[in-house]
Amino acid sequence: MDRRKFLLSGASFLSVVAASSMSNGASAEVFKSHPKHMKIPGVPSEVYGKPSKYEGHVGRLPEHIYGSSIITMALTPIDQLNGIITPAGLHFVVHHNGIPDIEPSDHEFMIHGLVDKPLKWSMEALLNYPMVSQIYFLECAGNSAPNIIADQPMDMTCGAIHGQISGSLWTGVPLKYLLDEAGIKPKAKWAMCEGADAGNHVRNVPLEKLYDDAIIALYQNGERIRPDQGYPMRLFVPGYEGNMNVKWLHRMEISDIPSQSKDEQSLYADITADERVKQYSFNMEVKSVITKPSGQQQLPMSGFYEISGFAWSGRGKVKAVEVSADGGKTWAKANLEGPIMSKALTRFTVPWQWHGQKAILVSRAIDEFGNTQPTRAEWVSRYARYSHGHNNSINAWQVSNDGKVSNYYV
Amino acid sequence: MDRRKFLLSGASFLSVVAASSMSNGASAEVFKSHPKHMKIPGVPSEVYGKPSKYEGHVGRLPEHIYGSSIITMALTPIDQLNGIITPAGLHFVVHHNGIPDIEPSDHEFMIHGLVDKPLKWSMEALLNYPMVSQIYFLECAGNSAPNIIADQPMDMTCGAIHGQISGSLWTGVPLKYLLDEAGIKPKAKWAMCEGADAGNHVRNVPLEKLYDDAIIALYQNGERIRPDQGYPMRLFVPGYEGNMNVKWLHRMEISDIPSQSKDEQSLYADITADERVKQYSFNMEVKSVITKPSGQQQLPMSGFYEISGFAWSGRGKVKAVEVSADGGKTWAKANLEGPIMSKALTRFTVPWQWHGQKAILVSRAIDEFGNTQPTRAEWVSRYARYSHGHNNSINAWQVSNDGKVSNYYV
Repeated sequence: MDRRKFLLSGASFLSVVAASSMSNGASAEVFKSHPKHMKIPGVPSEVYGKPSKYEGHVGRLPEHIYGSSIITMALTPIDQLNGIITPAGLHFVVHHNGIPDIEPSDHEFMIHGLVDKPLKWSMEALLNYPMVSQIYFLECAGNSAPNIIADQPMDMTCGAIHGQISGSLWTGVPLKYLLDEAGIKPKAKWAMCEGADAGNHVRNVPLEKLYDDAIIALYQNGERIRPDQGYPMRLFVPGYEGNMNVKWLHRMEISDIPSQSKDEQSLYADITADERVKQYSFNMEVKSVITKPSGQQQLPMSGFYEISGFAWSGRGKVKAVEVSADGGKTWAKANLEGPIMSKALTRFTVPWQWHGQKAILVSRAIDEFGNTQPTRAEWVSRYARYSHGHNNSINAWQVSNDGKVSNYYV
Repeated sequence: MDRRKFLLSGASFLSVVAASSMSNGASAEVFKSHPKHMKIPGVPSEVYGKPSKYEGHVGRLPEHIYGSSIITMALTPIDQLNGIITPAGLHFVVHHNGIPDIEPSDHEFMIHGLVDKPLKWSMEALLNYPMVSQIYFLECAGNSAPNIIADQPMDMTCGAIHGQISGSLWTGVPLKYLLDEAGIKPKAKWAMCEGADAGNHVRNVPLEKLYDDAIIALYQNGERIRPDQGYPMRLFVPGYEGNMNVKWLHRMEISDIPSQSKDEQSLYADITADERVKQYSFNMEVKSVITKPSGQQQLPMSGFYEISGFAWSGRGKVKAVEVSADGGKTWAKANLEGPIMSKALTRFTVPWQWHGQKAILVSRAIDEFGNTQPTRAEWVSRYARYSHGHNNSINAWQVSNDGKVSNYYV
């Protein structure tokens, strides 16, 4: 590896600064006077605060689908954010027939089917159950589809391509308590999980997963979940594709075989290269994306930069992330920011000296079970041309010699 | 310990349910028809989402001080929240002359004084520096003061008494990079840190702390920090009292002795019982509070409940939390929810069977260095009557035999 082009993660930032000078850093002029905002009183606090008006450009990216006025998808601007938590207001959203207006007193949750006794809970009852909290990622099965659909890389922001991923602290009631209270019959294997939205979204979840780490999520990032995340309650199945985390959940029918609901068959099956239907591909596989620098950003001048992004795996913890600045010829191990949590975003960084020449930035992650990311070509070879769910292939950005960053295929 | 009154943390929840039946749980009626919100299309997503209109009662609790129309304090409704993260919109706020309106292009950060060369950074330059992210608590030195000021416990919510504490993921630039770039002179020991607000808030921070884990915070919970948290930047000194985390930070003057600024002398000194002034009590000490059930809540009926709260220490990690349901006669070890992070909130829970009789719920925490919480009487004996900063004494709630929960002194 060429240390002049790419700095090893072992090199401390201070040695980098010493060696290269902080060309995009500080000036030595001192203040001449107080700014105007120190001379007039400020404004009061609000009961529920808002972001700065100077950050109005940071919003979810809406995509209108099916010609509907109802936005069916809204992506997280991950290139504008940092860390591993997404504010609820910017969490990605997908829905099939709008966001229902559900008054908590109008909502109940029922478990029936292959149970000893069908049971129904009010929101008030559920809110008095024991709860657990964990930080998890949530990713739509269709995330990063533009990089599969388009033969040539489209010039889009990182959020517009990869923004169907978010991270939150999810708090709720472990499903196992509720299932055991209803009493699951021995031959039961599946739960048909139905949302109380007009789209009547339905997915089948293996009981084994519901007994493992699934929760009825009632809080996101500390507060009650919001309408676009399933208020007053949603299913949360850590590491599984987004649409299985059924929002506005109101019913679970326990059965021995999975029901063949419309969503199960039409929308969320993958088609392999030999035209076979692959159902029940629940887990989101190991993946990584560099969020900074990324598509449509501009490096102001040559000098020192920190490459920053996040990695995740629906199967467990991220073990390592490697970053290349030369399109994959040489790789450096990235710093992972701890604590590394299972099925959560892990932020990685690596120091990088940009000399004002063309560069290709690439990241690849490996999870604790040794799973890795395929190249785009490998991924595409596995699936039919029109199948684009579960794309976890390696992502890249090109930096031109004038500092423009754009989407790139390696 | 009486197991009928209080369940050991070793007992699993399922055994509790089996033994006692879930009296506040489920009913066996099944759905008769679809709710009305499944029969009409929902509404589209928003660019920046909002909480449910049915959660409008969950807001910061404003306190008007000094007769000003500018709210100088707004508390987090911690009794309405869960987990260890506070949404930015509900993070507690204290300010002395309102929230300034700062356009990022109008803001610069300067380090001067005992340095090799005074330096100044634009926001654009700072946003290109390497960053770190960690989850930390932030607590005002005046948190829980009502329980010191009032001789008899006031009937208030947990948020109104203890709501000057919040938890967030804070992301920013380590101060050590900027200090080393300016070059600190050998005899330098302190930094006078000034905010660019009309209150001209100033605190002195030891350079040792700035070199340890202090950051220029630029992001909170993933997004750029908000105006009421110091937009476009604030100082963040993990574990130190809230007011040292200077918001709207624009200047650090490096010196060998601390400057005696107005805030340093008048507002943020503690007065001990022998009338001596105790300055520079930076660390927030180990503390815990039960958030559920808590003041002004109502237990609907006797039965099983989960006692839930959080603990923290400005010195490091929480090691253990114990909970009592009989005013401190017997104690049970609470479950701590991991990962346990240094200088962050740690959620604790303990199962509890309430038999419809009077109970006194108490929590006490110990940190990794063996520090513990004093009783209220012990705490009060250390300070002058009018000194109420840094109250980390043990907190309690009384449950009456009709299920009403109220503030209580043990």
